[in-house]
Amino acid sequence: MKSFNILIMNGPNLGHLGKRQPEIYGTQGMDNLPAMLKQLMGDNAGRVTLQHFQSNSEGALIDRLEATRADGTSGVVLNAGAYTHTSLALADCLAWIKIPCVEAHISNVLARSEQLRQRSLIGRHVIGVVAGFGLMSYALGVQALAMHLQEREE
Amino acid sequence: MKSFNILIMNGPNLGHLGKRQPEIYGTQGMDNLPAMLKQLMGDNAGRVTLQHFQSNSEGALIDRLEATRADGTSGVVLNAGAYTHTSLALADCLAWIKIPCVEAHISNVLARSEQLRQRSLIGRHVIGVVAGFGLMSYALGVQALAMHLQEREE
Amino acid sequence: MKSFNILIMNGPNLGHLGKRQPEIYGTQGMDNLPAMLKQLMGDNAGRVTLQHFQSNSEGALIDRLEATRADGTSGVVLNAGAYTHTSLALADCLAWIKIPCVEAHISNVLARSEQLRQRSLIGRHVIGVVAGFGLMSYALGVQALAMHLQEREE
Amino acid sequence: MKSFNILIMNGPNLGHLGKRQPEIYGTQGMDNLPAMLKQLMGDNAGRVTLQHFQSNSEGALIDRLEATRADGTSGVVLNAGAYTHTSLALADCLAWIKIPCVEAHISNVLARSEQLRQRSLIGRHVIGVVAGFGLMSYALGVQALAMHLQEREE
Amino acid sequence: MKSFNILIMNGPNLGHLGKRQPEIYGTQGMDNLPAMLKQLMGDNAGRVTLQHFQSNSEGALIDRLEATRADGTSGVVLNAGAYTHTSLALADCLAWIKIPCVEAHISNVLARSEQLRQRSLIGRHVIGVVAGFGLMSYALGVQALAMHLQEREE
Amino acid sequence: MKSFNILIMNGPNLGHLGKRQPEIYGTQGMDNLPAMLKQLMGDNAGRVTLQHFQSNSEGALIDRLEATRADGTSGVVLNAGAYTHTSLALADCLAWIKIPCVEAHISNVLARSEQLRQRSLIGRHVIGVVAGFGLMSYALGVQALAMHLQEREE
Amino acid sequence: MKSFNILIMNGPNLGHLGKRQPEIYGTQGMDNLPAMLKQLMGDNAGRVTLQHFQSNSEGALIDRLEATRADGTSGVVLNAGAYTHTSLALADCLAWIKIPCVEAHISNVLARSEQLRQRSLIGRHVIGVVAGFGLMSYALGVQALAMHLQEREE
Amino acid sequence: MKSFNILIMNGPNLGHLGKRQPEIYGTQGMDNLPAMLKQLMGDNAGRVTLQHFQSNSEGALIDRLEATRADGTSGVVLNAGAYTHTSLALADCLAWIKIPCVEAHISNVLARSEQLRQRSLIGRHVIGVVAGFGLMSYALGVQALAMHLQEREE
Amino acid sequence: MKSFNILIMNGPNLGHLGKRQPEIYGTQGMDNLPAMLKQLMGDNAGRVTLQHFQSNSEGALIDRLEATRADGTSGVVLNAGAYTHTSLALADCLAWIKIPCVEAHISNVLARSEQLRQRSLIGRHVIGVVAGFGLMSYALGVQALAMHLQEREE
Amino acid sequence: MKSFNILIMNGPNLGHLGKRQPEIYGTQGMDNLPAMLKQLMGDNAGRVTLQHFQSNSEGALIDRLEATRADGTSGVVLNAGAYTHTSLALADCLAWIKIPCVEAHISNVLARSEQLRQRSLIGRHVIGVVAGFGLMSYALGVQALAMHLQEREE
Amino acid sequence: MKSFNILIMNGPNLGHLGKRQPEIYGTQGMDNLPAMLKQLMGDNAGRVTLQHFQSNSEGALIDRLEATRADGTSGVVLNAGAYTHTSLALADCLAWIKIPCVEAHISNVLARSEQLRQRSLIGRHVIGVVAGFGLMSYALGVQALAMHLQEREE
Amino acid sequence: MKSFNILIMNGPNLGHLGKRQPEIYGTQGMDNLPAMLKQLMGDNAGRVTLQHFQSNSEGALIDRLEATRADGTSGVVLNAGAYTHTSLALADCLAWIKIPCVEAHISNVLARSEQLRQRSLIGRHVIGVVAGFGLMSYALGVQALAMHLQEREE
Repeated sequence: MKSFNILIMNGPNLGHLGKRQPEIYGTQGMDNLPAMLKQLMGDNAGRVTLQHFQSNSEGALIDRLEATRADGTSGVVLNAGAYTHTSLALADCLAWIKIPCVEAHISNVLARSEQLRQRSLIGRHVIGVVAGFGLMSYALGVQALAMHLQEREE
Repeated sequence: MKSFNILIMNGPNLGHLGKRQPEIYGTQGMDNLPAMLKQLMGDNAGRVTLQHFQSNSEGALIDRLEATRADGTSGVVLNAGAYTHTSLALADCLAWIKIPCVEAHISNVLARSEQLRQRSLIGRHVIGVVAGFGLMSYALGVQALAMHLQEREE
Repeated sequence: MKSFNILIMNGPNLGHLGKRQPEIYGTQGMDNLPAMLKQLMGDNAGRVTLQHFQSNSEGALIDRLEATRADGTSGVVLNAGAYTHTSLALADCLAWIKIPCVEAHISNVLARSEQLRQRSLIGRHVIGVVAGFGLMSYALGVQALAMHLQEREE
Repeated sequence: MKSFNILIMNGPNLGHLGKRQPEIYGTQGMDNLPAMLKQLMGDNAGRVTLQHFQSNSEGALIDRLEATRADGTSGVVLNAGAYTHTSLALADCLAWIKIPCVEAHISNVLARSEQLRQRSLIGRHVIGVVAGFGLMSYALGVQALAMHLQEREE
Repeated sequence: MKSFNILIMNGPNLGHLGKRQPEIYGTQGMDNLPAMLKQLMGDNAGRVTLQHFQSNSEGALIDRLEATRADGTSGVVLNAGAYTHTSLALADCLAWIKIPCVEAHISNVLARSEQLRQRSLIGRHVIGVVAGFGLMSYALGVQALAMHLQEREE
Repeated sequence: MKSFNILIMNGPNLGHLGKRQPEIYGTQGMDNLPAMLKQLMGDNAGRVTLQHFQSNSEGALIDRLEATRADGTSGVVLNAGAYTHTSLALADCLAWIKIPCVEAHISNVLARSEQLRQRSLIGRHVIGVVAGFGLMSYALGVQALAMHLQEREE
Repeated sequence: MKSFNILIMNGPNLGHLGKRQPEIYGTQGMDNLPAMLKQLMGDNAGRVTLQHFQSNSEGALIDRLEATRADGTSGVVLNAGAYTHTSLALADCLAWIKIPCVEAHISNVLARSEQLRQRSLIGRHVIGVVAGFGLMSYALGVQALAMHLQEREE
Repeated sequence: MKSFNILIMNGPNLGHLGKRQPEIYGTQGMDNLPAMLKQLMGDNAGRVTLQHFQSNSEGALIDRLEATRADGTSGVVLNAGAYTHTSLALADCLAWIKIPCVEAHISNVLARSEQLRQRSLIGRHVIGVVAGFGLMSYALGVQALAMHLQEREE
Repeated sequence: MKSFNILIMNGPNLGHLGKRQPEIYGTQGMDNLPAMLKQLMGDNAGRVTLQHFQSNSEGALIDRLEATRADGTSGVVLNAGAYTHTSLALADCLAWIKIPCVEAHISNVLARSEQLRQRSLIGRHVIGVVAGFGLMSYALGVQALAMHLQEREE
Repeated sequence: MKSFNILIMNGPNLGHLGKRQPEIYGTQGMDNLPAMLKQLMGDNAGRVTLQHFQSNSEGALIDRLEATRADGTSGVVLNAGAYTHTSLALADCLAWIKIPCVEAHISNVLARSEQLRQRSLIGRHVIGVVAGFGLMSYALGVQALAMHLQEREE
Repeated sequence: MKSFNILIMNGPNLGHLGKRQPEIYGTQGMDNLPAMLKQLMGDNAGRVTLQHFQSNSEGALIDRLEATRADGTSGVVLNAGAYTHTSLALADCLAWIKIPCVEAHISNVLARSEQLRQRSLIGRHVIGVVAGFGLMSYALGVQALAMHLQEREE
Repeated sequence: MKSFNILIMNGPNLGHLGKRQPEIYGTQGMDNLPAMLKQLMGDNAGRVTLQHFQSNSEGALIDRLEATRADGTSGVVLNAGAYTHTSLALADCLAWIKIPCVEAHISNVLARSEQLRQRSLIGRHVIGVVAGFGLMSYALGVQALAMHLQEREE
């Protein structure tokens, strides 16, 4: 397996994971991701370098995505939070920078009853989606993305 | 890790994977799932026993799901195909039998433009969803389901 | 009062009444229907012969309804479950076989908040509806149907 | 069986039953209800005391419902006519006074094609519904309500 | 500050405040309004004379509003209950009598999920709205209305 | 020409014509109707006896319409105001009492931009409509109704 | 009363009145309009000069309306037939030429159930509407228009 | 002209043609199709071999369509009945097996007023449609399909 | 078989068939229709006299349809092009002249994704529809129409 | 720069520019276009030959567009007026004749509040749009079209 | 009364109050809030410490709200401007930080006709709303919030 | 011609023009705008001073627009990218700062099929729009804006 630089990108209200509603989300924050990845991927986890970026600002997220075009990022695991449903600008960004991207969600977004949340603007511009498995959704997303990148190389 | 009996359940038009449109889906059918799972989960794959059921009939799928209540099935990875969007009866079944279920899709269903496909009737009754990674979606779904079941045991 | 052969017909997910969620539906299954009918109709209950048919399959339900044209069935008490809301084919069947039919529901379907459940496709082809009284809805439906059939004879 | 005071409540345009379109509704008015109930319930009919109230005014119907909180009414069989579909105020009233209520309709409201009539505002606040059996719908509603009240007592 | 006659007007299902669901609304009825106003406005409360009118009838509310044109009422604090969302006639009345009016709601109507309650027909014809503060909404409404009337005088 | 008793019926907010917004509606109230009718119909006006009824209450309007079945009313000119758009109960009343009815509106209701006002619930149960000609709409409505009644007699 | 030149304008499928479906529309064509007007308006009918124009073509109707700006036409009674509901161009024409116009319909358009016919595009640009009285709708429309023009002169 | 094996496939409620409502559909069943085809195509009818399959079950119809991939079927004339409007699974099947298919309907489906019937899910995956000509629709469909297949061969 | 005069009527943008996009529609224009009909109907083609009319103007199409009432036309095969979806006036015309009419389309209109094209205004007023078979749709339409006319004669 | 023949095409209600509502549109008609073009393009204006066509008829506009295929027209600047929003036939015409076309509007159509005007049927078949600059919109449209044509030549 | 730190938070386009459209909003800016509060609350105003934060950026508003969890803020009076209607992210933030919040609006937002402004995304996560009273809305909001906080303490 | 300071403002994903998808947009970036303007406006180009501002952040765009009130900007040519369709806040900003603004788009936005992109929130607050001409849209927008400003001066 080759090595990959993967950017974990979190949108609004996702900067306090581990401290926010621990009875629901547990006390584990994004810091635990490497350990989870190790558990999931075994030694292959060593071939993946993770970066993390979080912002509550739609513009800052787009800035960061645009920057991936020049900094050697191999792919993105993106949890855009509420912007998943409202940010056409973020969707346009994914459409033109064309970096391989996997959408991840902590909870099962399809299970929520609000109509607005059933429309995903960014879904058309990603490889796939992993949702509903808590922080493990990120780890599964990284694993799936790494396999996708590996396959593309071959 | 404990051992789990996991049922892979495929809905309409999913009985010919591997033979159907090989230029898109590859030549691998559901037979390759154990090997893929081995690649993904390593030795832990041995703790998962897979069964497979496919039917084009909405009623037969419900019959099979009801049967899981008495046959020791630990959980289900379900790709309901078109019934994902039209079968309220299948959704009701998941709601009352309450078996842990992960939704899997070969392609990225969120990326399709037909409005009818953007409504998932069964999504409210599953733990989570994995979509867009070809047959690997099933393997990732099994892995995620096994971790969920493991966690619940503890 | 004349004698009538009445078919109780149950659609998807209704094959396990009495065992399913007993804290809600009680421990009584369809077997208790004769006793309930006795309680409701007294001696008149003796003039009603009940048959019972359940299937999770839309096609099998239509097959059974078509068979009533040749087997002496006087009328049908139908709980089509989720097919109430999605099966145009079942509605078409009721429209052309024209057998007297009463719609019955265990719970008060009008009280559910899902928009899809507020559309009844089969409602246009039945005499009337009884909903919300548990298994007693079937018994009330049989009683109402028997009175309707009796009246038509006179 | 215990004794119950049941209020039959009719909404707009339901004050002339028996005189209105006799070729459709027959020549029987609400006066025949006791006899019908006798036919339906036998001796148990004696345990039910019926009152009757009709008004064309939304406000008067709410006033009367509020009065049930202090006058010993056990339950209500309500045919709200057109207000079934337009009166949020009547729905709110049922929601807060919480008196057991059964919805009754002379004709099969589900079979009417007007979209506005397919929305029931009060349906969420009743035990169940009986529709399509002419005046017998009221009698079946009283019977079902009495059984519900009896059961609650036990 | 000048003196003002202010009419507190309550619509359907608002005639039993203080007795209705005391665990939610408290045991205080409209009788407590003067005391609350005193607490809120101090000595200025003395310059406000309050009248109170409640009816469950849409027509009676309109009659009462029309009467304000000849009885020296300075302004109205209106909680139209369910008629807020359904009464175009009440809205038309506010539009033509043009009396200064503040809309008040005990609970936060914006927070309710029913779509019908998100449409306010009367909102276009009022100065402003105060909602969500229990009975205090009325007192805040009176205070705001008095300030508005005072300002208009100057 | 025969003689006819015609009931002019006005709904909510129409009790103050002539005093309400005189710069728009002029200073003429319903009292001027006979004179207008004379101007319009000449001597034939003498064959028409007018009654007038106005109420802000939906229920009272229905009560009055029901009363026409026994008091010799030949036909109705109805301006239901806002109830034109919201009262299904009034529409049901016109549907069953079947008295010849002409809908009249002072202003051109089709020209108003609110979507709710573009739906007429009662329009399906009237002979025709006259709208946009101020109080003259009533006079034209009476004239058209009288001609319709005359024709039916012949 | 002054004299007026009034153009009766008929849109598509209205060129064969009197011959088309005589069991419904009678055997009277537009030729009878002068006589009907005489019956309606008496001697005042002499002050109204009628022209008639009919075309099945949207463009020709607009051409004719534009011509009224230079040919001394005082006002228009327009039955645009199906173009009432589909021709935004005709509506724009009425909006800019600003000639006084009354909309007339033979049948009661509000009573038709097709949704498309419940939207009137031209209704916003006319003084008023008369509908449902057969050919008499035109005569009533002319009378109402003449009174409107007379009033404007004064 | 070459020879072709054509499958006539009928969906739900189409198994009793000839016996069902003979006053509408006549007494001719699918057995008459060869004779009709002879009348229509003359000697060329001999080059077409017909098979017939009918099922009320969505799944069985899909099973049969999938079987055409291995049994030498040249093309399909499909009347999917109510599944035309509700079965996304059947549509998906046509999309992937890619067998030439003509849609046939006994009655003119476009002329029916129900909104649900105006949406055809399978229409996007067929060559063309023939509707409204009774059983002759099948014969015309076979003829058109044969010409299409012939042309493709050349 | 009797003889019939059949009018082939083409709407907007259908005047250049054979020259327009030959790679799609082939180089055959309407001139080839007689030959195609001969191929399809054999000697019976001789009993059908064809006329052809094309216009880009909605009004001219209606004029021509109205003229069929007096010129011995037996029936119409109509491809109204875009007016199929927008011309309520053309639909009204078919509704009142009541000439037997078959709708024909070169391409499979049901397969197009634009929502506006999925609404057929004229479909309710035709016997049936043939769509998707290129110019052969016209020939099949003529054949079906001739059989329909023949049957009606008998 | 090459020379181009450009057709300025105006739809319904655009035949009286310069005389229509001069306080809004000014007193300049289409005659001023050459001078405006001179001001805008300087000497390059000499390379553009302008023709002008206006019609209120949808069909005549399509006829004229079809004629451009044989008369040496290089491109079209089209202001289709109300047909922009309602004429699918005009849109189909632009789609198949494929002449370079720029859409022009005198006023800012996006700023109008009517929902129907926010849908442009022809917008999908033009190069671009210029709107809101009065008659100058045409001149800017010609300039942009000329540059587009020039570029295509190179 | 206890002391409270209350954050006044203004969203986009609210940074220039007092200078923006003074003929509408007056010349008073947020600086006048303390004085207005003094007028409203008398001596109790001293117990409230106000901070003020304004930003045009959705992300910065969320950052600031998140910061309240650690800086001793007791509650928030929020005027989110246009983000009230479009920012699901801001709504999510209020949902999870759970700080007591009152929504304030300068104008009566319910009275605006744009459909988008009638949907409040944040309304579900606030205690209540005060709208329509100019800058006084903030002062009334602070007063109501202080009373709410006081009550909660007790 | 006077001199004007014009601000070219680009929204999200528009910071990389010239480098982004050069096969579509060409290799020219915003740097080429002065040269294009020279080509378009000749010597008059010298009277226009251009500034350029780009941001991916909705808030920063509003900040910059507000700053134009104090920095001598004469007008704005704005391409708001995806915010055209989603930013009510940007629309509000244009509404209150009232600076002359022209909307520009590189591609023909009307030709895109996504429904969300057919709604322009900012369109109601601009003078006009230029779309579809690549970077030349900006130059045409500047030219049109300059002429508008010039005219306003006179």
